[in-house]
Amino acid sequence: KVWLCEAEPHFSEALTSRSRLILRPHPKPLPQVCVFGVPVQTCPMVHPDMLNVHLVAHTHDDVGWLKTVDQYFYGIHNDVQHAGVQYILDSVISSLLVEPTRRFIYVEIAFFSRWWHQQTNATQEVVRDLVRQGRLEFANGGWVMNDEAATHYGAIIDQMTLGLRFLEDTFGKDGRPRVAWHIDPFGHSREQASLFAQMGFDGFFFGRLDYQDKRVREEKLEMEQVWRASASLKPPVADLFTSVLPNIYNPPEKLCWDTLCADKPIVEDRRSPEYNAEELVNYFLQLATAQGQHFRTNHTIMTMGSDFQYENANMWFRNLDRLIQLVNAQVIVPISNLNSTRNLNFLWLCNLTGSGNQGSDTFGPFPSETSPPEAPGWLSHLSSRPTPSRSLPQVLLSNALARLSGSKEDFTYCRNLNVSVCPLSQTAKNFQVTIYNPLGRKIDWMGGVVMLPSSDGQELLFPASVPALGFSIYSVSQVPGQRPHAHKPQPRSQRPWSRVLAIQNEHIRARFDPDTGLLVEMENLDQNLLLPVRQAFYWYNASVGNNLSTQVSGAYIFRPNQEKPLMVSRWAQTRLVKTPLVQEVHQNFSAWCSQVVRLYRGQRHLELEWTVGPIPVGDGWGKEIISRFDTVLETKGLFYTDSNGREILERRRDYRPTWKLNQTETRDPSPCPVDSLQVHRRLLKDDGRGVGEALLEDGLGRWGRGRHLVLLDKVRTAATGHRLQAEKEVLAPQVVLAPGGGPGTALFLAPPRFPQFSGLRRELPPSVHLLTLARWDQKTLLLRLEHQFAVGEDSGNLSSPVTLDLGDLFSAFTITYLQETTLVANQLRASASRLKWTPNTGPTPLPSPSRLDPATITLQPMEIRTFLASVQWEEHG
Amino acid sequence: KVWLCEAEPHFSEALTSRSRLILRPHPKPLPQVCVFGVPVQTCPMVHPDMLNVHLVAHTHDDVGWLKTVDQYFYGIHNDVQHAGVQYILDSVISSLLVEPTRRFIYVEIAFFSRWWHQQTNATQEVVRDLVRQGRLEFANGGWVMNDEAATHYGAIIDQMTLGLRFLEDTFGKDGRPRVAWHIDPFGHSREQASLFAQMGFDGFFFGRLDYQDKRVREEKLEMEQVWRASASLKPPVADLFTSVLPNIYNPPEKLCWDTLCADKPIVEDRRSPEYNAEELVNYFLQLATAQGQHFRTNHTIMTMGSDFQYENANMWFRNLDRLIQLVNAQVIVPISNLNSTRNLNFLWLCNLTGSGNQGSDTFGPFPSETSPPEAPGWLSHLSSRPTPSRSLPQVLLSNALARLSGSKEDFTYCRNLNVSVCPLSQTAKNFQVTIYNPLGRKIDWMGGVVMLPSSDGQELLFPASVPALGFSIYSVSQVPGQRPHAHKPQPRSQRPWSRVLAIQNEHIRARFDPDTGLLVEMENLDQNLLLPVRQAFYWYNASVGNNLSTQVSGAYIFRPNQEKPLMVSRWAQTRLVKTPLVQEVHQNFSAWCSQVVRLYRGQRHLELEWTVGPIPVGDGWGKEIISRFDTVLETKGLFYTDSNGREILERRRDYRPTWKLNQTETRDPSPCPVDSLQVHRRLLKDDGRGVGEALLEDGLGRWGRGRHLVLLDKVRTAATGHRLQAEKEVLAPQVVLAPGGGPGTALFLAPPRFPQFSGLRRELPPSVHLLTLARWDQKTLLLRLEHQFAVGEDSGNLSSPVTLDLGDLFSAFTITYLQETTLVANQLRASASRLKWTPNTGPTPLPSPSRLDPATITLQPMEIRTFLASVQWEEHG
Repeated sequence: KVWLCEAEPHFSEALTSRSRLILRPHPKPLPQVCVFGVPVQTCPMVHPDMLNVHLVAHTHDDVGWLKTVDQYFYGIHNDVQHAGVQYILDSVISSLLVEPTRRFIYVEIAFFSRWWHQQTNATQEVVRDLVRQGRLEFANGGWVMNDEAATHYGAIIDQMTLGLRFLEDTFGKDGRPRVAWHIDPFGHSREQASLFAQMGFDGFFFGRLDYQDKRVREEKLEMEQVWRASASLKPPVADLFTSVLPNIYNPPEKLCWDTLCADKPIVEDRRSPEYNAEELVNYFLQLATAQGQHFRTNHTIMTMGSDFQYENANMWFRNLDRLIQLVNAQVIVPISNLNSTRNLNFLWLCNLTGSGNQGSDTFGPFPSETSPPEAPGWLSHLSSRPTPSRSLPQVLLSNALARLSGSKEDFTYCRNLNVSVCPLSQTAKNFQVTIYNPLGRKIDWMGGVVMLPSSDGQELLFPASVPALGFSIYSVSQVPGQRPHAHKPQPRSQRPWSRVLAIQNEHIRARFDPDTGLLVEMENLDQNLLLPVRQAFYWYNASVGNNLSTQVSGAYIFRPNQEKPLMVSRWAQTRLVKTPLVQEVHQNFSAWCSQVVRLYRGQRHLELEWTVGPIPVGDGWGKEIISRFDTVLETKGLFYTDSNGREILERRRDYRPTWKLNQTETRDPSPCPVDSLQVHRRLLKDDGRGVGEALLEDGLGRWGRGRHLVLLDKVRTAATGHRLQAEKEVLAPQVVLAPGGGPGTALFLAPPRFPQFSGLRRELPPSVHLLTLARWDQKTLLLRLEHQFAVGEDSGNLSSPVTLDLGDLFSAFTITYLQETTLVANQLRASASRLKWTPNTGPTPLPSPSRLDPATITLQPMEIRTFLASVQWEEHG
Repeated sequence: KVWLCEAEPHFSEALTSRSRLILRPHPKPLPQVCVFGVPVQTCPMVHPDMLNVHLVAHTHDDVGWLKTVDQYFYGIHNDVQHAGVQYILDSVISSLLVEPTRRFIYVEIAFFSRWWHQQTNATQEVVRDLVRQGRLEFANGGWVMNDEAATHYGAIIDQMTLGLRFLEDTFGKDGRPRVAWHIDPFGHSREQASLFAQMGFDGFFFGRLDYQDKRVREEKLEMEQVWRASASLKPPVADLFTSVLPNIYNPPEKLCWDTLCADKPIVEDRRSPEYNAEELVNYFLQLATAQGQHFRTNHTIMTMGSDFQYENANMWFRNLDRLIQLVNAQVIVPISNLNSTRNLNFLWLCNLTGSGNQGSDTFGPFPSETSPPEAPGWLSHLSSRPTPSRSLPQVLLSNALARLSGSKEDFTYCRNLNVSVCPLSQTAKNFQVTIYNPLGRKIDWMGGVVMLPSSDGQELLFPASVPALGFSIYSVSQVPGQRPHAHKPQPRSQRPWSRVLAIQNEHIRARFDPDTGLLVEMENLDQNLLLPVRQAFYWYNASVGNNLSTQVSGAYIFRPNQEKPLMVSRWAQTRLVKTPLVQEVHQNFSAWCSQVVRLYRGQRHLELEWTVGPIPVGDGWGKEIISRFDTVLETKGLFYTDSNGREILERRRDYRPTWKLNQTETRDPSPCPVDSLQVHRRLLKDDGRGVGEALLEDGLGRWGRGRHLVLLDKVRTAATGHRLQAEKEVLAPQVVLAPGGGPGTALFLAPPRFPQFSGLRRELPPSVHLLTLARWDQKTLLLRLEHQFAVGEDSGNLSSPVTLDLGDLFSAFTITYLQETTLVANQLRASASRLKWTPNTGPTPLPSPSRLDPATITLQPMEIRTFLASVQWEEHG
């Protein structure tokens, strides 16, 4: 049920002066589109009795897609895709200078900042002036426009902080975006909306949505709504005005005047055989009127731009100038930038927890790990930036550890530990292992280091304990003549008499079918829970675009050729490994599909580490490989996933709360929407959505490895398990090796040469996650503290508010002054203001501004509080 | 033999100050390419001890090719070809403003003038300033860049006058081009060079030439020469410095930075994986050094641009800026405009009458008629501008005649007379026929008007006499009950007993083989000359790109599949028409190939009017149709053609005076190089040179009609015949019809109702051609008088100088003041100066400036004199 609401009285003044909002009651018929002069002033006038069509001149610049970031920036390999962002920015600035009524929005700060640093002081001053006048405005303002489907919330916050900080440092509040702008992500997560609200955005525009959803919204005039994006956060903290763009993010048909388009320019000369001005103006008026019918106010938006457009901005602006001039001879068409609150003119609210969020959220209980800390800024879809051999954060970590530990040794970050290659540990007789733990609590961790240059890469396994926000150093020395006790996997065929195949630790027991080698049962020993669960690998035959389905399966589209997947193998050859520290069943399904099912000592979940690939396609069939868990649970399609690794959402298969789903695609229920259970794919054809190539790697193909962690628990207590484990997985310990390590005499672990170090004087309570602790400037740290439990999620007290004393929390520094900011730290929280909305449930009480006392920082469930802390560093002991 | 010459002493001062010319003796080794600062001043410095590489930023904008002129201008149908000239000019101006060292040349005034008229006063002022500073310069400056192969000299002069006048009116002498710029025409005619010299150009740059010619020029350092382009005009009147561009007109490989190219931009950031600045600079230096080896001075040119480039000029200029900056850190690369004489630095001469002129000149003794007076400005190759139904010149002519004759009737210009359609004459009972004669001498002409709506379009034929530069009006009335005497062709088969098939008049007799129907003999009765000559139609099987030849025959390339052509038919069905006014043999070769061989009364040439098409291609073979004349003359390959309808050139088959021709193409000698004997073609495949389609008309195909006129004469007296007949053909009478015509009582011609009118008080002597008489402005006329005989061409006195008295020549006005100008009337002749060159034959004496006396205007053989005449109009009698 959706209402149209007036703005609250105490905002009416602000709205009048800042937004010049024009409301019209629904369903009043649309007034005639009519005359409106575009003024020279920076703020286009809005005409109350007319349909106001906001033409938004914009470009969408993927920070890596078919080309690398550098190639996009400079315009290299234009034969692959014509795109050169340096020219776009040159060109837009030039065109804005030609004509003061022209306006433009820019989005991707990764590109903008690079361009900025190549400009002369004079050009920078000109651009500052354009920003000051509101003719060049920034929307979104993140380093990139991040994906929403599989991105961890921590990475989202980091990349938004990076981009918005550049804008704040460069342009001050003039450059501060007022709206979020996610025009290209495929599916939209509730968590993303919640984060945007907490970042201080007044509104959120997105482009892509399910066509059935869009049709319903158009019919019901629900293209614009306020999204209540959190079940835990107190309204209006996570309320966000959200608008669906009418044409994804493209210009209307026939009105694309970019160098990449072939639409006819406006020809005003009546003597020319190509004269078309009258026809185009009439077409535009019809279009605008029809589009306006889907909106409740007399405002609507047209996105005049698209992928890497405006490289020759003059073409666009010339024709926009003409269009505006011609239409305004009869009607109104302001060219708009989005950020100004003056254009946020869409005022109603529906209570829609979860609505509009049938996207592609990641699966719980564990977030998919798609946000490696090494590249927080490069989260665009299908980014092609080559991975640097040694990334910046690793270098920083090594340096920091060297400084903290006082070591003068060169630290080595063995990135390839997971593929069992580490030259240092495989050749040195003595070396140090430093383990860093970024969490606010001590961890017990099973350290693993590859040793000896053996063909099967033997691993040294040892239990390590690392203090909160600190590190432990272990020395490893090889004792001449002795070799470590090696546990080799036992092929099961050597023990044909055994009818039991199982692994077990203090908490969990997993049983396998001795005939097929498949997992068949999992038991929580603590809670005395037993669940039959069968796990195996399956593959879908990928559609190649034939009479079964014209849609090819490819980079964008998962489209199996048949409903049911086939098993990769009905049975696995198994080997069993049992040591005091770990028990493993090694399953070999085929030459290209294997898995280790593992239980470490003390661990409360079952770990399934799969290795899949290269997928054979010699039979001419593209393949989509999934890991499938079959249980006897009767869920009636109901299940729960996290959203970007944070709040949990209830979901139901083949159901949408706001419309009757018409499921048209051939598919099996299994993999959808838990996309992290699709482990690999290799396809023979391009799906025609833009990449222009099949997902078919060169040569023999590639293999992938990943882990699925499975907890078996009761609803009441499950949150404790998955929240805390997820935290450990996302911020797992970092291992750094260094040569040397003293005159070691033992083959086994030497005692630490340096005392362990912890950055905290006491551990954080389990409900508090130390989300960010980073240097901001010379004397300031950026600190984010998060309550990582939702309201009612834990039956114990982990879902309760928690209060911290920051005064003496940190061991390396003392906080001398604390300021609270918005989530992205570009504004002080106290002075940040957002447009407010009145829901149909009644006015939202204004939060009372709380005084900030470092000694009593209270976190509500799911709350993230962001601080800039001036600090006094302790002398290093 | 080619020498390097110093400039003449009295020009050295001018050269030093204006050109800053740097000479270096040949074959001094090239100095190192070296440092050179590009100054902010408008004139780039030239460094005497360095290789000066002149980077010329330019765009080549066909005034009609794959798209129409309007489509090119506005950027419509960019899917056919991406090109929008309005954006090019917008963009170049913007980019020039950004950075004062940037320079650009523009060429096609048809586009520029249209753009200019759409600009605001402010933009026009900015552009004027750029032109004043020399940052925007014009080269060539014609309305279009005309073809050289088949264009009549009159049309060339007209279109150049039109473009240059716009520049003169708009920019004064700042906008006056100093160099001609024919970068795209295929083959270069001597006459074009002669005309350019007479237009006052200091130099001529061209792009396309035979690859063998180019190789020889590069080896012999003859890329630059002075072309002595007339055998008649006294040097240095037709001497023209001529430079071959090193890379047609394109940028060097890898250095194309247009939006239409995919070359890598310069990346200076050493941290980028795409860093390439050092590599590109080294590549450029190698390239420049290698190219410099082919030039005698230490100057060389690089054309930085191509077809419709600079639509996003920023891309080009950004990278040119970087290149210049980087190279000048080591070396010298000025960015240049061409017109400034400062860049005309190539100083030697060879005596090369005819050399370098093995292009595709039109055939004599008659010029091919490719320059209809209705569209002098639109002479670009393959222009796609749709023919307007009624063109401007026709309207003007009708209006002028109406005014002169005092008639109030609507004049009708029957454009389609040649296809026997004229609604007025076919339906009206009475009508007037007005015949306008633009020549300076009276003509006797055989008037033809289609009459009656009969299926075979009967023609009324009558001998008309029209005074010099005037008109005669005839009234035609149908007498009820009477019908005109109709002469129907007689099928020869009706007279099988006759063994003689011939036509004859007072001067000529043509005999046909009674069995085959083919022309076999021609006789000049006056001179008692008889020549066996056999004429028939042949076709070449067009190459489709197979193992016989990989090159397809198409729009650009004539490439037969076999050496010998096949006859369309070995015999023709014939009919004979004999009347007092005309005798005709109608030959029917096939359903799609016919011809009328005709002798009008009093005519001194044989006329062959062919009708060919639609060419059948149902057999899968593309066809090239030629008309072939076989004679017994032993010419040893020597023959003579005109050049653009003006001076005559001796030619020799398969021979080039400056290099040994290596003839590699499969072809028959017959049609080459007399291209006007190729009458039609229909081809099935594209030849891959740009048009992207086969020469294959839609539907059933098209037919064409044309005439070949053949004179048989002795060398001594031939010129009189072909010069005077050519003049009549090019400026043939214009026929205008009007309804009414008085109470006619006769079926036959009524006496003129109005007196005949002549614009001249006396006829011009036969050697003088009235080339131009046109309104220039309110009180001024443009007058061009031409001596149309070459030195020694006529054995009588027609090749002698001739003197005219203009004082009382014209009947409609009196000349009150006369100024002589250059050929294109943009400068007074007395004050126009060109760079002078010293040939190896010794210094050229300076022409003494002659005083201008309207009473004694002397024309030397082949001289064209151009005047602006202030006139006093006579009261109309």
